[in-house]
Amino acid sequence: MSPRRPQVRELLIRIDGDAKAPLGRQVEEQLREAIRCGRLAAGEQLPSTRMLANDLAVSRGVIARAYGQLAAEGYLAVRQGANPYVAPLLSQQAQTRAQPKENGRRWRFDLRPESPDLSQFPRRQWSRSLQCALKNASDRELGYIDRCGLPQLRRELSAYLARVRGADVDPDRVLITAGSTHTLTLIGRALLRQGQTRLAFENPSHCLLHTMVRRTGLEPTGIPVDDDGLVVDKLEQSDVKCVVVSPAHQFPLGVALAPERRMQLLEWAKRSDCILVEDDYDAEFRYDRPPAECLQALEPERVVYLGSASKSLAPALRLGWAILPSSLVEPVSAELHASTLLQPSLEQLAFADFLARGEFDRHVHKMRASYQRRRDLTITALQAELPELPLRGIAAGLNLIVELPGQEQEETALRNAAAAGIAVETVTRHTLAGYCGPRGLLISFAEISEPTIPHAIRSLAQALHGQSTE
Amino acid sequence: MSPRRPQVRELLIRIDGDAKAPLGRQVEEQLREAIRCGRLAAGEQLPSTRMLANDLAVSRGVIARAYGQLAAEGYLAVRQGANPYVAPLLSQQAQTRAQPKENGRRWRFDLRPESPDLSQFPRRQWSRSLQCALKNASDRELGYIDRCGLPQLRRELSAYLARVRGADVDPDRVLITAGSTHTLTLIGRALLRQGQTRLAFENPSHCLLHTMVRRTGLEPTGIPVDDDGLVVDKLEQSDVKCVVVSPAHQFPLGVALAPERRMQLLEWAKRSDCILVEDDYDAEFRYDRPPAECLQALEPERVVYLGSASKSLAPALRLGWAILPSSLVEPVSAELHASTLLQPSLEQLAFADFLARGEFDRHVHKMRASYQRRRDLTITALQAELPELPLRGIAAGLNLIVELPGQEQEETALRNAAAAGIAVETVTRHTLAGYCGPRGLLISFAEISEPTIPHAIRSLAQALHGQSTE
Repeated sequence: MSPRRPQVRELLIRIDGDAKAPLGRQVEEQLREAIRCGRLAAGEQLPSTRMLANDLAVSRGVIARAYGQLAAEGYLAVRQGANPYVAPLLSQQAQTRAQPKENGRRWRFDLRPESPDLSQFPRRQWSRSLQCALKNASDRELGYIDRCGLPQLRRELSAYLARVRGADVDPDRVLITAGSTHTLTLIGRALLRQGQTRLAFENPSHCLLHTMVRRTGLEPTGIPVDDDGLVVDKLEQSDVKCVVVSPAHQFPLGVALAPERRMQLLEWAKRSDCILVEDDYDAEFRYDRPPAECLQALEPERVVYLGSASKSLAPALRLGWAILPSSLVEPVSAELHASTLLQPSLEQLAFADFLARGEFDRHVHKMRASYQRRRDLTITALQAELPELPLRGIAAGLNLIVELPGQEQEETALRNAAAAGIAVETVTRHTLAGYCGPRGLLISFAEISEPTIPHAIRSLAQALHGQSTE
Repeated sequence: MSPRRPQVRELLIRIDGDAKAPLGRQVEEQLREAIRCGRLAAGEQLPSTRMLANDLAVSRGVIARAYGQLAAEGYLAVRQGANPYVAPLLSQQAQTRAQPKENGRRWRFDLRPESPDLSQFPRRQWSRSLQCALKNASDRELGYIDRCGLPQLRRELSAYLARVRGADVDPDRVLITAGSTHTLTLIGRALLRQGQTRLAFENPSHCLLHTMVRRTGLEPTGIPVDDDGLVVDKLEQSDVKCVVVSPAHQFPLGVALAPERRMQLLEWAKRSDCILVEDDYDAEFRYDRPPAECLQALEPERVVYLGSASKSLAPALRLGWAILPSSLVEPVSAELHASTLLQPSLEQLAFADFLARGEFDRHVHKMRASYQRRRDLTITALQAELPELPLRGIAAGLNLIVELPGQEQEETALRNAAAAGIAVETVTRHTLAGYCGPRGLLISFAEISEPTIPHAIRSLAQALHGQSTE
């Protein structure tokens, strides 16, 4: 037998006479799998139908039909008078073409703020919730469901947000979206349709939000932030009708909105007939200060509350939510309909189940402790290695700032860190026009393991010191 | 013992000493579940920690911690010196408020074209693919993945579309979206940004597409359709730069684009430097005519191919795809990024697995046979009950047209059917300005079971005949 013709035993096909799947299906699936995973390579010959049928003690017709199906699907090629062989697969050809573009370099340490620690994603628990969702979903829930989201999830989220964030929430005013940026885009489009031209942001705030909003056609306007959060006086001079704020934990500066500022902001909104968008993006992760009730609780008809599972679970779930003032439910849900029509139902059902079981609370609790340890290690390492640089925004969240004197030093530090294989971001990346607050490097400790932190910070310090001796 | 204080046995708590879950967790989960499902109603008292601990043969601390957790979550209320009792739940309050709005009536027969037969959704197979996705997903795949979609799915879809639709496809030009309407919105926005003001549609075509496109800011323009499909001569006089067509199966008229029209259309696109959007929305379901290769195969740099799992699997999966001309990959994927940032990864991985296992082929094959039987029954019933009314669009798809002389008769029929508890749609609902083609009722046989079809059609006929005797 030629070395290119595998023996039946090598095919590793096992027939289970007691299994529910018909014999032919069993053969077909195992062969397909063998080809797909590369165990049977392109060009390899298969045994004749007679030989395989003999060895597996099934009829030749069973094998012939399995071969026929695999040939129809393009896995096998058939030559007149010869045994079938494994075809050069379309999907394999495709595979070589569709390699994700390498971004050119691998980082030794990636300290940029992006995802939470995805290695801790609760796969087993999420899997159980997904299974439960698929088992319990009604047929209708697989169809064109309510554009605002499934009632189960809106109820569970309402209970959660009332309990944990003190939100004033009625499930009828909850909208399920693909995440906070998606929600903000929908709000932006609704405002644009109402004749708005600008949307105010804290300056600095996440650059991605600026990009997304600019693309809707609104112009982002920056309002300064100081140690007490958004400078509301400046907002009053700005003549905007809507501002996006992160009162619990300002990104990237890490301050919390002071109580008197909260009141001033709400007063401004009422007096000027304006809308506040409260981006509560990582309120779960707070270490050294008591939880502040969300702003929305105080003025639910003036404040849009935004949340998502991107920091607490994983960005690729694309699960976001908003609590809307009554006046915005219709316009914003209409924008959602005009965007994706509706959001996928199984992940909504799974998340509802996950919340109902208390798994979300448990995961957040576990991760809060874990991030706090990483934060403590990061601070200790920075204070030891870079004692001359002040730290900011350490009381909450998944990142902090190593302050630098100015933009020039930021750029040099970024360059030197990159040369040492360390990815960081600058505060400046997240600024809008007119910024004159602190500068520095943004350091995330969410995606770096505890034992690695001292090494990463030492390397960063060496890179930054290298800069000063240049 | 008061009747409001359940005995431990009534609590139905079972402790499994061999289970992996800690004892306290087991108690906590079972109590939570009992409260959530209403077995323990608001106000009911629980046994004391000592009593329950005794009965379950665990330590009091275990019970106290479980009670504490449930109190923190708001399920239990605790009074000084008394046993805890079940709290009036936020989520229960929420539940009563968030009842989905009933649309006011229940139909005896719903024959409107909307979803496929969702009772046939392959739950078991999809569940396996989801489990597989969750098990095999890399940590990175839970984060901010490529905005165009996961390479695995783009490869699998490429292989599938090349095999089944003859598409000319390179995974680098495939975009994963939330469905065909989502894709069309993204294309609309990209065209708008390039300075287009109008988008041509077949007249009639699905009204939802018109609404979605109008909302992007483009004006939909209708181009007539005759028995050979889109009247390309009219397109040539219209001065648009992009047209949406459904060559395999025109919605709602059900015609296929004739070979000479296909050529004429492609010639027009090349000559006028225009883009065709091929909406291949239900190409899987074709009964009496040979499969026509998709238009995209002939001119991949002029044709955008649109597909989705909404007709073949379920709308609530929100899985759609496009094959884009190279020139549109960047602009359209940028619009996707500005919409949802990215699409959820687990369903992409699940769908890739589902395709790879051959489950998609198998499901489509099974449903095609099932829909063909329903179509045959529907035709037979219509010919027996309404022999005077011609049928259209019966060779493919999930719906057909019962032709009526004009718009007035359509409206009377719609009204009479509704009065008899039968929901149908009119052709007119899907027309744009200037329509002068056939009128009639659109009848979907996708969501009605085989045994029900004769009854439904007889009732429809009676309602329509009632109309003529009015």
